[in-house]
This record gives sequence, structure tokens and C-alpha cells, in this order.
Amino acid sequence: MKHLKSWVEVPDNSDFTIYNIPFGVFKTLEITPRLGAAIGNYVLDLAYLADHDYFSMISPLNKKVFHSKYLNEFMALGKPITNAVRLAIIDLLSESNPKLQEHTLDRKQALIPIEQVTMLLPIDVKNYTDFYSSKEHATNVGVMFRDPENALLPNWSYIPIGYHGRASSVIPSGTMIQRPKGQIIPQGENEPILAPTKALDFELEMGFITGKSNMLGTSIQMEDAEDYIFGMVLLNDWSARDIQKWEYVPLGPFLGKNFATSISPWVVTMEALEPFRTAGPIQIPEALPYLAYSENKNYDIHLSVDLKTECSNKKTICNTNFKYMYWNMCQQLVHHTINGCNIQVGDLYGSGTISGKDSGSYGSMLELSWNTTKPIALGNGITRTFLEDGDTIIMKGYAEKDTIRVGFGEVNTTILPTN
Amino acid sequence: MKHLKSWVEVPDNSDFTIYNIPFGVFKTLEITPRLGAAIGNYVLDLAYLADHDYFSMISPLNKKVFHSKYLNEFMALGKPITNAVRLAIIDLLSESNPKLQEHTLDRKQALIPIEQVTMLLPIDVKNYTDFYSSKEHATNVGVMFRDPENALLPNWSYIPIGYHGRASSVIPSGTMIQRPKGQIIPQGENEPILAPTKALDFELEMGFITGKSNMLGTSIQMEDAEDYIFGMVLLNDWSARDIQKWEYVPLGPFLGKNFATSISPWVVTMEALEPFRTAGPIQIPEALPYLAYSENKNYDIHLSVDLKTECSNKKTICNTNFKYMYWNMCQQLVHHTINGCNIQVGDLYGSGTISGKDSGSYGSMLELSWNTTKPIALGNGITRTFLEDGDTIIMKGYAEKDTIRVGFGEVNTTILPTN
Repeated sequence: MKHLKSWVEVPDNSDFTIYNIPFGVFKTLEITPRLGAAIGNYVLDLAYLADHDYFSMISPLNKKVFHSKYLNEFMALGKPITNAVRLAIIDLLSESNPKLQEHTLDRKQALIPIEQVTMLLPIDVKNYTDFYSSKEHATNVGVMFRDPENALLPNWSYIPIGYHGRASSVIPSGTMIQRPKGQIIPQGENEPILAPTKALDFELEMGFITGKSNMLGTSIQMEDAEDYIFGMVLLNDWSARDIQKWEYVPLGPFLGKNFATSISPWVVTMEALEPFRTAGPIQIPEALPYLAYSENKNYDIHLSVDLKTECSNKKTICNTNFKYMYWNMCQQLVHHTINGCNIQVGDLYGSGTISGKDSGSYGSMLELSWNTTKPIALGNGITRTFLEDGDTIIMKGYAEKDTIRVGFGEVNTTILPTN
Repeated sequence: MKHLKSWVEVPDNSDFTIYNIPFGVFKTLEITPRLGAAIGNYVLDLAYLADHDYFSMISPLNKKVFHSKYLNEFMALGKPITNAVRLAIIDLLSESNPKLQEHTLDRKQALIPIEQVTMLLPIDVKNYTDFYSSKEHATNVGVMFRDPENALLPNWSYIPIGYHGRASSVIPSGTMIQRPKGQIIPQGENEPILAPTKALDFELEMGFITGKSNMLGTSIQMEDAEDYIFGMVLLNDWSARDIQKWEYVPLGPFLGKNFATSISPWVVTMEALEPFRTAGPIQIPEALPYLAYSENKNYDIHLSVDLKTECSNKKTICNTNFKYMYWNMCQQLVHHTINGCNIQVGDLYGSGTISGKDSGSYGSMLELSWNTTKPIALGNGITRTFLEDGDTIIMKGYAEKDTIRVGFGEVNTTILPTN
């Protein structure tokens, strides 16, 4: 890849290098919600740039999309256009390009220090599907709750198992969540009570977002699947294990999950992630022909979870990698539409909890504390099995190769007491 | 209730009497999509009436909402306004009111013969939740697939069990569906193949639609629940039993359901259904206090399913009633938000399959044919266990008391072969 350097200062280890250029939606005290791109510690006001003809070489391009509250209309323009916009931004930010760099007024107006902006939910979430595609996670859950000898259910190895989640409660990083209440069975009892969950958990996931729709009754083929995927975010699939446990048979998780799903505000494009493709695990049994794929469809993305409590400093409790996923995003999408189900621009798809092989790489408190049997030490004598009020979960993710770094920022969420 | 009569001819047994006035979205060859109300065999063009000041006594009222492609903006005005519009329409259609009746031009423009219109999907479905609230249905499924001695799972009697369905594939009556394909296990085999479903089924349900939202983190109280429910439709929750059976453990139905959900195009308001309130079944064990309710919250609505094949005439295969539901709509809605989940204007909620006690009142082919052991005779020597290509399912519903009749029209869907 060509070496790139921006005239905007990009700190070492910044997630938002010139190789990245993620898209998001922001506002400031003066500026109404609109589309932005991140570079170093700045947000580039794309509506301002469009209005001042910085994208005039891209045609057709409706400038109004940059003034939207969501990325949906922009994504719907299609990859030829959205990629051209991203490349135009990279060009504009390159140190050899004087156009914006030397235009004092536009530079001042368009480049906003990141601490002055509020990042908003980047997409109008049309449908939210959550998969269950980490073999390690599915195995851990099976060992704990079913049969250690037959931890994986028979269908798991054939189907990228998924279910529909709640679109309305997807929230951006920074939005605090309340501890949900619900029906739970007190220990040693048979009948439920209504109470705040005692088993509040995070699930470390990544989400992908579709920027293209198919018609109801048609299926997306493997060779076309990538064209539908606009980009990715970090995703925290909040879970109340005691509510979930009591309710989920036979129709799946409902109130144990749908009180909140947090995502990172910057959508990293698949084009920015291109250098980080890697091979996925060998699938045995072989996937059915409609799920067969060639070339690398996994991505080498380092992921971590920090836990901060009111009485202890931030501590990293999980380090894992998105490359461990058994079922890849294209397989998930192809499977999702094999029955003719129609996907929409702005649909969000969670990967499922991303766990690695060793216990420091598990993507949930349930697994990290092995269902409360191994409390996690956080320093100052503080331990956790599940999460307490006032705790903050911070998920981060980045990809790095040679001198290229592309990151996701974070999804940061603090837990408030029950209302 | 006051006796009402319309100057518009309303045939005997019409679903769309002056007591009903359901709302929908229609278009004609000349008229762009807009809101309408049904009366007898006519559709009233509400955009035309609003533009010609027939609703000028209602304030504030943004006339633009009647030109929308969906009912969402209209519903979001709130019940004081939407009820006032419905009452104004009833007044305008009453035989004692000459205003529209004697205005030759407006009457001709605003009253369109129903055969000239195409009915569209009435709401922009934001989220779709499907419940499982018929005790008879849940028991039948439990007897067939689990343990006849313990047919109901322990949680069923405490929780209005529900799960998230697919919003994007909700379609209106008249839209044909394709037989979905998916992973199924051939009889006697252990491994799945990709094939068209051999077990395509309908599920007779009713759906309610919310016209009011709550904030994430808040819960709707029982005494406020009715204020959130705008109206109801007939709902066919299409199901592919073989796909569902292989995929649904542990996270619930996914591709076995999300290829299509059909609804009737006219949304009957809760105000029109008021005369048909009736007591629900006694709940044992007693519901937890947050689900306790007073007054009648079930509705006496006759429901039927007709099946027509390419080789046999329409035959009624199911007669049942919405009054049999164990969990009522208010309990469903209160439970849905007890964890702080936010509902939105335009959310759709399926009741779950509505089965009665006797075998002629079962709301699915699965139950009617008792899992293929009792084929249904349709005449001409034609029988069915599940549905075949070319079959048409027609669901109807109406409420009747004294001289008042309020009906839903129908949801009519024909099955096409796999693409």
C-alpha cells in the first residue's frame, strides 16, 4: 500500500489515521447533527466540505446526505460513491495536497477538535440481527449450562446461528444504561419475582452494517456479499443472565437482551480494513455449498475490554481478536437471505460474543468468571463476577500491520442503578 | 351506543360499517399513496378531505400527515387528535350530515370505489415482536414436540413469552410469497441439506400497533398501557416448520419465520373495538403484580382461515376467537417494557397463534393436521398437511354485538414456488 501522511497531526497509536477515515454523525454546541470523518484528534465536517465544493469531482453526489442525522442516505449512494468520497478525503488530508491545508478559513471551519463534538448514533438502525458465531463462546456456554461432552449443539456447526434483536434500543458509546429489572428466579426458589437483574453482563462483539438492500424473495450470493457490507463498529450486547435464563426457552432471548445494545460511533469502512484480511478457521464439517467461500474473509482486529469501578482503576479483563470467528460476515449475510429475507440499508448485525481459546480472551463476565465460580480481581481488593452499578465497560479495537493502523475508538458505557 | 347510519351504502355483513372507520394507506392509478378510511365498499381519501378543510375543526392538525405513505406520522399525533379525526369522519358520513353528502364534486373526489384502489402496507414497521400467548397453542406444540405430561414450559404461565421478529419482511395482504428454502434435515438423516421447505405453514394471529413511544429506561405501567395501542390488524406469521425445527435451539426462530409476515391493510382502532371487550381467562398462577389488571382487556373477535388450492374451492379450515388469548395486549406491552425497553410509533406486535380448545379452532396447519398425522380434506379428493405451491390462505376477522359490526377485512396470500 502506498505510504500516506497527513498534514493533520495524528498522534502515535491514534485509531484515526489517514488510512482509516471512518464515518460518523456528530454535533457541537453550534453545529446541527451531520456527517463527519475522523482524523487524529479532529473531526472533519463533511457537510461543510460538500457545501464548499470539495467533493465536486464526484458525480452524481447529493450534498444533502451530509446534512443528515444518520449515515443511511450516504451509505445508500453505493460503494462507488462512498468509496470515492473516502478517497477524496484521504487526498484532501494528504500532506502533498494544499487545497484545504492552506485554506485558512475552510480549514478552521471544517476541522473540529474531537473534544468539542458529541458523537451520535451513526445509523438509523432498521433491523438488528445478532449472531452466535464464536465457536469458543458457544462451547463455553455449552460446557457451563448443558453437557461438557456435547457442548456444541448439532446445528451450530452447520448454521451461522442468529436471532433478531431489538433495533430501537441500540445506543451510542457514552449513553449510560440502567440496570434492567425483570422476572428472575431467586436461588433455591421455583417461582419468579420482579427484581433488578443480579447478573448484568457485557458481551464483546463487533457489528457490521449493510449499505445496500435486496428484494424480499431474493438471496444474496457469496460472491456478491461483500458489496452489501458498508463497514463495522464495536458492539456491546448487554445481557441480564438471570432474566435471560428464565425467559429464553423456547423462543430465544428477549428482555434479557433488548434493554440496550451499545455501539462505537465511528463506522470503519471495509475498504479501510482491507489490509487486515486473514484466513478463518477451517470449517469441519465442510459448510454447505451456499456457504462455501474462497479467499480470506476474516479480519485481524485486536479487541480488548476494560472494566473500571467506582473503587478501582481501569483494568483490562479481556484481550481477544476478531480473527477467531468461526462463521465470517459473508457467510452470516448469505445465510440470512437464503430464505428470501430482505435486508435493508442501515441493518446492524452483531457477530456474537468473541471469545478466544484462553481464559483471558473470553468476551463476557459469564465466561471470565466461569459462571461466578472465579471472581475477577480488579485491584484494591475489588472483585467482580457480574457488573455492579457505577461500573464502566470500555471496549476497544484496532488493526495494525507494518506501519498501518486502523482503529475503532471505543464503546464506553456506565451502569446506573435501576430506575 | 348511539345508533348510527351512513349515507354511503354499507352492504349487510360489511366489515367497514360507520362504527368501524379503520385507517389505511392506498393508491390508485391517478392518486399517489396517502391515508384513507374504509366505509362499505368505498375508500375515503383523507388527504383530499384534509386539503379541502373538512377537518378544520381539529386543531392542531398538520394536513401533511394525510399525504404520507404510512400511518406513522398520523398515529404519532396522539389519541386526542386521531380520535377526533375518526369521530369527524363518522360525523361526515352520518346520514344527518349534508356537508360531504350533498357536495357533488367533493363526494365524487373523496369517495373512491374500493375495487379501484390498491391497499399498501399501512405502517412503516419499526420493530416487530411476536408473542406466544395462546395457552391452547402452546399446549398443542408442547404435546406434539415435548412432553404431553408437561406440555407447557414452567415460564409460560408467568411470562407473556415473546421474541423479536423481522420488521423488514412484513407485507400487506395481496403480496404473494415464495416458498422459502433453507437448511432442513431429510427424514432419517442426520445432516442438513439446502432445499425448499416441505413444511410451509400459516399461523393465525392478530397484531396490534403502537402509536406512542416511551423513553429507553422507562416502563409502561398497566394503567397507561391502552394509551399506547393505536389499533389492530390480522396477522399471518408464516412459518417453515422444518427450517425452524433445525435452527431454533437455543436462540429461537429465525429463517423459519423471517421470510414473510402478512398483515391486513386496514388498521381497526381500539376505539372501534371498545364495544367488544370481554373478560380474559382466569390466570393461575396469579400474574406478578406488574402484570395484574382490572376490567376487561380481551376482545371478542371471530376469526377464520380459508384455504383455497389450485384444485379445490375455498374451504374454511379454522374458526376461532381472539377472546381465548391467555395474556392480553396490555400485559404483553407492560412486560415488553418492564426492563426499560423502548417501544416506538409503528411497532407491530403479534399475538402468537390463536388456537381454541377444539380441533376445528386450531390456528396453524401443524395443529390442524396434528403434525401431518391427520390430513385436512378440502374436497375433490384434495388433502393437505402443510401448504403447497399455488395455495391461498385467507384470514378474516370481525366483531359483532347487537346491531354493531366491526371487521378487519382479510389478509389474503398465495404461495409461489421457490425462486
